[in-house]
Amino acid sequence: MKTSFESDYNNGAHPLILQRLMETNGEASASYGFDKWSESARQKIKAACSCPEADIFFLVGGTQANATIIDGMLQTYEGVIATQTGHINVHESGAIEASGHKVITLPSHDGKMNAAELETWLKGFHADPTLEHMVIPGMVYITFPTELGSVYSAKEIEAILSVCRRYDLYLFIDGARLGYGLASSECDFDLPWLAQHCDVFYIGGTKVGALCGEAVVFPRANAPRHFMNIVKRHGALLAKSRLAGVQFDALFTDGLYFNIAKNAIDKAMQMRRLFINAGFILRSSSTNQQFVELSNTRMKELMEHVLFETWEPIDESHTLCRFVTSWATTEEDLEALKQAL
Amino acid sequence: MKTSFESDYNNGAHPLILQRLMETNGEASASYGFDKWSESARQKIKAACSCPEADIFFLVGGTQANATIIDGMLQTYEGVIATQTGHINVHESGAIEASGHKVITLPSHDGKMNAAELETWLKGFHADPTLEHMVIPGMVYITFPTELGSVYSAKEIEAILSVCRRYDLYLFIDGARLGYGLASSECDFDLPWLAQHCDVFYIGGTKVGALCGEAVVFPRANAPRHFMNIVKRHGALLAKSRLAGVQFDALFTDGLYFNIAKNAIDKAMQMRRLFINAGFILRSSSTNQQFVELSNTRMKELMEHVLFETWEPIDESHTLCRFVTSWATTEEDLEALKQAL
Amino acid sequence: MKTSFESDYNNGAHPLILQRLMETNGEASASYGFDKWSESARQKIKAACSCPEADIFFLVGGTQANATIIDGMLQTYEGVIATQTGHINVHESGAIEASGHKVITLPSHDGKMNAAELETWLKGFHADPTLEHMVIPGMVYITFPTELGSVYSAKEIEAILSVCRRYDLYLFIDGARLGYGLASSECDFDLPWLAQHCDVFYIGGTKVGALCGEAVVFPRANAPRHFMNIVKRHGALLAKSRLAGVQFDALFTDGLYFNIAKNAIDKAMQMRRLFINAGFILRSSSTNQQFVELSNTRMKELMEHVLFETWEPIDESHTLCRFVTSWATTEEDLEALKQAL
Amino acid sequence: MKTSFESDYNNGAHPLILQRLMETNGEASASYGFDKWSESARQKIKAACSCPEADIFFLVGGTQANATIIDGMLQTYEGVIATQTGHINVHESGAIEASGHKVITLPSHDGKMNAAELETWLKGFHADPTLEHMVIPGMVYITFPTELGSVYSAKEIEAILSVCRRYDLYLFIDGARLGYGLASSECDFDLPWLAQHCDVFYIGGTKVGALCGEAVVFPRANAPRHFMNIVKRHGALLAKSRLAGVQFDALFTDGLYFNIAKNAIDKAMQMRRLFINAGFILRSSSTNQQFVELSNTRMKELMEHVLFETWEPIDESHTLCRFVTSWATTEEDLEALKQAL
Repeated sequence: MKTSFESDYNNGAHPLILQRLMETNGEASASYGFDKWSESARQKIKAACSCPEADIFFLVGGTQANATIIDGMLQTYEGVIATQTGHINVHESGAIEASGHKVITLPSHDGKMNAAELETWLKGFHADPTLEHMVIPGMVYITFPTELGSVYSAKEIEAILSVCRRYDLYLFIDGARLGYGLASSECDFDLPWLAQHCDVFYIGGTKVGALCGEAVVFPRANAPRHFMNIVKRHGALLAKSRLAGVQFDALFTDGLYFNIAKNAIDKAMQMRRLFINAGFILRSSSTNQQFVELSNTRMKELMEHVLFETWEPIDESHTLCRFVTSWATTEEDLEALKQAL
Repeated sequence: MKTSFESDYNNGAHPLILQRLMETNGEASASYGFDKWSESARQKIKAACSCPEADIFFLVGGTQANATIIDGMLQTYEGVIATQTGHINVHESGAIEASGHKVITLPSHDGKMNAAELETWLKGFHADPTLEHMVIPGMVYITFPTELGSVYSAKEIEAILSVCRRYDLYLFIDGARLGYGLASSECDFDLPWLAQHCDVFYIGGTKVGALCGEAVVFPRANAPRHFMNIVKRHGALLAKSRLAGVQFDALFTDGLYFNIAKNAIDKAMQMRRLFINAGFILRSSSTNQQFVELSNTRMKELMEHVLFETWEPIDESHTLCRFVTSWATTEEDLEALKQAL
Repeated sequence: MKTSFESDYNNGAHPLILQRLMETNGEASASYGFDKWSESARQKIKAACSCPEADIFFLVGGTQANATIIDGMLQTYEGVIATQTGHINVHESGAIEASGHKVITLPSHDGKMNAAELETWLKGFHADPTLEHMVIPGMVYITFPTELGSVYSAKEIEAILSVCRRYDLYLFIDGARLGYGLASSECDFDLPWLAQHCDVFYIGGTKVGALCGEAVVFPRANAPRHFMNIVKRHGALLAKSRLAGVQFDALFTDGLYFNIAKNAIDKAMQMRRLFINAGFILRSSSTNQQFVELSNTRMKELMEHVLFETWEPIDESHTLCRFVTSWATTEEDLEALKQAL
Repeated sequence: MKTSFESDYNNGAHPLILQRLMETNGEASASYGFDKWSESARQKIKAACSCPEADIFFLVGGTQANATIIDGMLQTYEGVIATQTGHINVHESGAIEASGHKVITLPSHDGKMNAAELETWLKGFHADPTLEHMVIPGMVYITFPTELGSVYSAKEIEAILSVCRRYDLYLFIDGARLGYGLASSECDFDLPWLAQHCDVFYIGGTKVGALCGEAVVFPRANAPRHFMNIVKRHGALLAKSRLAGVQFDALFTDGLYFNIAKNAIDKAMQMRRLFINAGFILRSSSTNQQFVELSNTRMKELMEHVLFETWEPIDESHTLCRFVTSWATTEEDLEALKQAL
């Protein structure tokens, strides 16, 4: 079987998570988020975020979390501002529009939104005399790390947040791969800082070692009223909520979440060096997704030895390819890649 | 810790399912429904349903499955006909209306829809000269077994299907507890028969031994076009689809799904006899949910020993209470109930 | 040409309204609600309602007004309570559900909602432990007069409003035929009283002498934020808003709105006596819609002389028929009916 | 009172239209589109379009028509492709997204879509391996004339239609100002040709002489099934449909629609010459909207004499301004402008 660098969601759960699912399986418990493991996980996440007041909900996946949060926080007539490459704009089959909200796009700079461009756009919007005919922006959506593996600096997020505050917009940080962003050597803040610098974010589990699950955090007890009904209305309320609860309880015990991320980043950096040493050109990325430029010939050769995804064509004879690490990436995997290169 | 008869989703997964999750955890696999276990599970379900052509999708939960199926099969201006007590009408926080569809209600007869009443309603509808001002019915939704534990006979389903065919309506059977209905002594048909007598149904996993998951079956390759996009748009596409795939593969190996249901029904019937012998009045039910009339005094006494749910007030001093069995219900649990009674 | 009693919207506009459209046609004016006639009409309506603070918007038709108001005032997860016969539940092709809101139904008593039944339902709802799985009621919708021609007394509306206040629900009065209700001999309140006893209502123009138009009134400057955007988003913002503005300005000049209604009611009462004198049975109605029980033979004979609508079958040989008056109903029309009878 | 060039919807109706509303006012007629004038108007429009099979519906306004058509023709999971400057993308308060559809944007070339760019985008889309995660394009939306006053040539529309046919997309032409486009000296086709080169279009009334109304034409009896229910569900069904019927009947009697457009274009061309002669720079436009570059000083001076709209800032000291003609624009109006210049 070929070594796979296809994604961070094509392997199972981290063994410690599975072990906890086994250990707790025999106990009966409340459901729909009221089980004891969900409660315990909420306490641990509050501590990890230094947010004793936070409202925390466990959803199943990223698109679901995005759609539910955006629909829950916005008024019907409001839209959400994202970059052109933002996940909600590209890869969610219209889940945001499905609940009636326009995704307003700004340019993407290596996946990131620029605070100055955001402000310019907002100034122009508010100067427009036809405001009553337009979608009112209600939220800024950014991903951390971005879909292209880049990370915002604290200063960049502060700048965006500052614009949001001046224009009365919520700031929502999609953390489907949050752990990898925080573990990046480029990241100059931690989880408590992040929680203080947005209105809602989620801690991705699916792509960071869990079988499924995203922990949605409203850091200042600021969940929309009746948010559980909103979750249920989106088909996002787990009956056996222990499934998410036990996993997040495990992830936030003894730093497992951060350890998983750290392993993936270490392996990604080793992988990066392998490519560089072999003379390949990579896009800049300090997280667990590495984007490598391959000639189509080389790409096909490599595919015979290891699995990875094509990202987008560069030109007729070259393709940008994505190699991803996770908790499951081992030294042996890297050795296999090295041999293949 | 008190013995719980609260629900069939407050315990973990059947041990054989967890075991398979453990065994397969180390293997990398495709995602979004293309993993090998999902493929294997689809083959086994097709065999179990005698539907070699079926389109099968694994979703996470019941409300999600209902909303996605109904929205996927109906035109925007169409509504779905259900009984007054139907789950989609009562307990889904408006998830059906959230995608724009009216739930049109008919009377509930112990949870069941009556084919003659359905036909009378449809005749009246089509005789109405103001049809252009009304919601066009596009689907009939029934639950098997019903929310009240009752089961349709083959003849009753045939009658409803026959009306659906005459009026060009889809028949959708919500099988969140399908196993328990099929295992009921009152049930006079099997899974292949069911698959032949509707347009879409799902095989509930969450309430029948899995951690999560519902297998949506379009029996005659009749899934709506681009159904995966519809699923994704509803936030219902699992990234690590192996989570559902492995579980359903296990459930449809060596008859596990049916064994789980059988155990729950056996225990429910024993429980039923315990109550009857102790002089209690129960509503008629041949499935794993038993509804017992308790005086409020007796209810409080009993609650000190075992856990169960109150269903609805009967009068000022009596309450209808629900006792539910599952794969996890043991002889010891029944002994505890017996002692308590 | 046969005399028509089919509806109150099958004739043109009251001549005084058309005359004003002619007189003002040559003047250029602002659009989208900012024209001077709309402004003038708003002032006159505020005066007629004794609501100097009111927010007033002119929409085109009833279904549009209902959908826009309900969607504008409710949160996404909230539903609206109506009677089973309420227009939004029966004759709006799912326009309310189209923006995601469930219509929760209570019994209809000659078209009216009963405050005690409303309260009982709300008590039951709030006592339900599964509130997070249900549609939260956010508004009560009643029609005045009702679809069946009946009118609420001041006491009945007070009782409903009182329940709404206790349960934190908006009260919305659909006044598509408001004039006829206020002109009814049974009505024991006036427009200012009505404005004080609800959160939003509209003054129907289409069915009370205009070509189109409904004046939506939020009596206490309580329009939802950005309501114009909500109106535009519903496709309900007239570019040439003068069309509605001029008409409502005319309707609220020299009591035209009330005179139109008075004529229709006078003619309806004369019509009623004609039927009674001829030995027919009528349903109780003090407004401009009269419901007469006709044998099918008699119905066909009558249809050869005058036009009217069949409402619903009573039994195999009898039909309930609707005869409606309007501003356009004349003594000659009644004479024609008398001859036909 | 100042002469206004603010818009083509800030004046009343063409006198011949008003006259017909007067003449027909006394006649009772069916409603909801079944009145005789609507029927007559449909016949005349079919003749004018050389489309004897066409399905024709009269809606009230442009945003409503756009939202209803797009929602009626697309599947829920489909999006509509428009230019960045397309009306549905900019000025409809999210009415398209309100019914769940994403507006997918392509670059605007003076308001127009480029067929080659469209095809390139579609090729890229279909080559993407993550199709199941994306919004499927179902329709191309173009405006004729565009929001910027430009007109497509027959060749350009043929090229776009050809791409639509290859990729199985509907082509929808928003004709809110259709008459002005057809009357443009640059236009090299007529109404029957247009009707043959798209799947649906509408003939704008509101901006071309009517008080309100847009005639939606499905040229080959290809209206979506139950389109009247779809219209009603969007709150777009006029009760007194005679209001639209009489107006369109008048517009398509003796070429009134085309005469109205011709007058506006003649006046626009005269206006254009006035500006050019006075040394101003205008954007290219052969229709009734003229865009003039004004220094902010000059703009303020001019505003003291005639009314017009600012369109967008060019730089800190210059603004693009819009001057619009209509049926109501007279020689005197142009003389006033000449004096002002």
